[in-house]
Amino acid sequence: MISPQDQALMAQALRLAEQGRYSASPNPIVGCIIADAAGQVLSQGYHQLAGEAHAEINALNNASIDLRAATVYVTLEPCAHHGRTGPCTQALITAGVARVVIAMQDPNPLVAGRGIEQLRAAGIHVELMPNSSAAEQLNRGFIKRMSRGLPWLTIKTAASLDGGTALHNGQSKWITSEAARLDVHYLRAQHDALMTGIGTVLADDPQLNVRLSKAQLKIDTDVVQPLRVVLDSQLQTPSTAKLIKAKGDYLIYTAENGVNANGFQADHVIPAPVDASGLSLPWILRDLAARELNSVMLEAGPKLVASAIASGLADELVLYLAPTLLGQGTHGITALGPLDTLAQKQDLTITDSRSVGNDLRITALLNNT
Amino acid sequence: MISPQDQALMAQALRLAEQGRYSASPNPIVGCIIADAAGQVLSQGYHQLAGEAHAEINALNNASIDLRAATVYVTLEPCAHHGRTGPCTQALITAGVARVVIAMQDPNPLVAGRGIEQLRAAGIHVELMPNSSAAEQLNRGFIKRMSRGLPWLTIKTAASLDGGTALHNGQSKWITSEAARLDVHYLRAQHDALMTGIGTVLADDPQLNVRLSKAQLKIDTDVVQPLRVVLDSQLQTPSTAKLIKAKGDYLIYTAENGVNANGFQADHVIPAPVDASGLSLPWILRDLAARELNSVMLEAGPKLVASAIASGLADELVLYLAPTLLGQGTHGITALGPLDTLAQKQDLTITDSRSVGNDLRITALLNNT
Repeated sequence: MISPQDQALMAQALRLAEQGRYSASPNPIVGCIIADAAGQVLSQGYHQLAGEAHAEINALNNASIDLRAATVYVTLEPCAHHGRTGPCTQALITAGVARVVIAMQDPNPLVAGRGIEQLRAAGIHVELMPNSSAAEQLNRGFIKRMSRGLPWLTIKTAASLDGGTALHNGQSKWITSEAARLDVHYLRAQHDALMTGIGTVLADDPQLNVRLSKAQLKIDTDVVQPLRVVLDSQLQTPSTAKLIKAKGDYLIYTAENGVNANGFQADHVIPAPVDASGLSLPWILRDLAARELNSVMLEAGPKLVASAIASGLADELVLYLAPTLLGQGTHGITALGPLDTLAQKQDLTITDSRSVGNDLRITALLNNT
Repeated sequence: MISPQDQALMAQALRLAEQGRYSASPNPIVGCIIADAAGQVLSQGYHQLAGEAHAEINALNNASIDLRAATVYVTLEPCAHHGRTGPCTQALITAGVARVVIAMQDPNPLVAGRGIEQLRAAGIHVELMPNSSAAEQLNRGFIKRMSRGLPWLTIKTAASLDGGTALHNGQSKWITSEAARLDVHYLRAQHDALMTGIGTVLADDPQLNVRLSKAQLKIDTDVVQPLRVVLDSQLQTPSTAKLIKAKGDYLIYTAENGVNANGFQADHVIPAPVDASGLSLPWILRDLAARELNSVMLEAGPKLVASAIASGLADELVLYLAPTLLGQGTHGITALGPLDTLAQKQDLTITDSRSVGNDLRITALLNNT
């Protein structure tokens, strides 16, 4: 039986897990709370960095007392296999805890349920929370990669209240406020890769990095720069581009094969197949998932945004709306082809809207799944 | 001295005033609370219907005890003149109240301050609240009419997340949810007139009325239908149009003079001058203010919306955003002319955003004043 006390302690473990959100990838983020029967927290831990201890191990190591009557709250099924660290199930069995409450099963279908089985076989009372949606939300990128071999794909864009992103002559800088542009860096820090198109590279020369300090992100570890990804069918990225020069790593996907006039390292330039809309986005996203990237944020022009939406592989749209009107003839957020009937419209579900400076940030899920 | 207790009682009077928001026009809405020195409310009243008693009179009539030590909180300076009802100042003086706290002065520059003077001359201690913004917000239409001879002009529109209102072929029905369409009726009920263009009449044949019950509006009085206004330069409105047939009154502004093929009553058809953008919106708005209309909501196509914005006379934009993407070639919310530099953009201030069903409602002030 899951009690209200169990619910409250698991909620605490879920919040704790979030402390790993800027650093745990490609691993899932996990939080673990150990409490006595009265609900008193005895110890806690979260997973901070891939290759380092899992949340359960950190919580066990942080405990200095006898845990034999304790309940362990963990936001993801404990691992049962030897990875870079030992199996967490064994550590829990050795500690002799009485009960383990788990927010969700391992999303990898090959191992889901094994950790639970091992704990039960050792006589530990294991319970799965009836509602796993909050835990799934935390690791939606990891879950999508494990279950579908694809990363979570966020599209970030900005527009005026009349839906424009740039004037008819292309002028577009500074539509959103400084506060909105700062907010984007927090979004970037939560993604494993930032993707753009060669058009944006040539027009804007973005750095496409996270320009926030450890203190701003409230983390102890160094800031991890997301991988920068350019879709560049004709390999036109200048070797002097800021996103090439900036700290951190980059990948250029191209239709050119063997041509590398700009002298990029061979393993930074990836030949990719082409489909009707240009470089194959499904292929590239699968390749990024194979490289253990859980989440990708696209910051690009209307054409690439349209390709991402049309591919059916985009999960979320984050739209910053600036309180201004740009008038007719402006470029929209997406170059999705004209529709002939309303039945063809692409529906979304708005999950959040909030003020960011003078702007409004709208988050919506694309109803693909 | 205005104490925290005074602030709290005035806040209560402001909330009370709102009960008249669907019925008091062309009068301002006003709330009045009478309290003893300990802050105990002795009586209260609000202004419900033009021609009937003012808030102060209702509050005095509702009181059954001696008010000689009482403080009266009134959201607008009491009237000092004989209108359809006697002056409120005289009633307050007769009741012998000790103190009157006023949220804001009369916005009519010809009489502002006179009520305060009369009360003070009678020995009543009168205080004006230091911040009148909440009181001004309640009567922004009345204030604009009194101070500038123009009604408050709200533009109501709806769009998809990519800024479209209709497909390239004109299809547009049902972009927003039923909840949003219901919400519009509450907005309509708060306006004295609803304005549209002949294009919308011919394309959609809207009723342009309030389809809410007394119970839905939480009022005791009958539902007052806003005046329906059509901008129809060539007098093409069919005599069978729903907004002509519906309960309540209508006006048609036209450039035609003396031609009335459809047999409308002469006082329903108003010849109006024409300017570069068509029928002169400034002239029409002044005419509506002269008819004692405090507020007008425009529900029209992108061309008339653009005229209203370009006129500099629009105050507020209410934008319902539907969680969908309509693709390229769609009509936007406004046909504002193309801009050549970002400095020409029309800036607004977002004052509210909230979920209405699956849609998002954004309210923004046009920065004209």
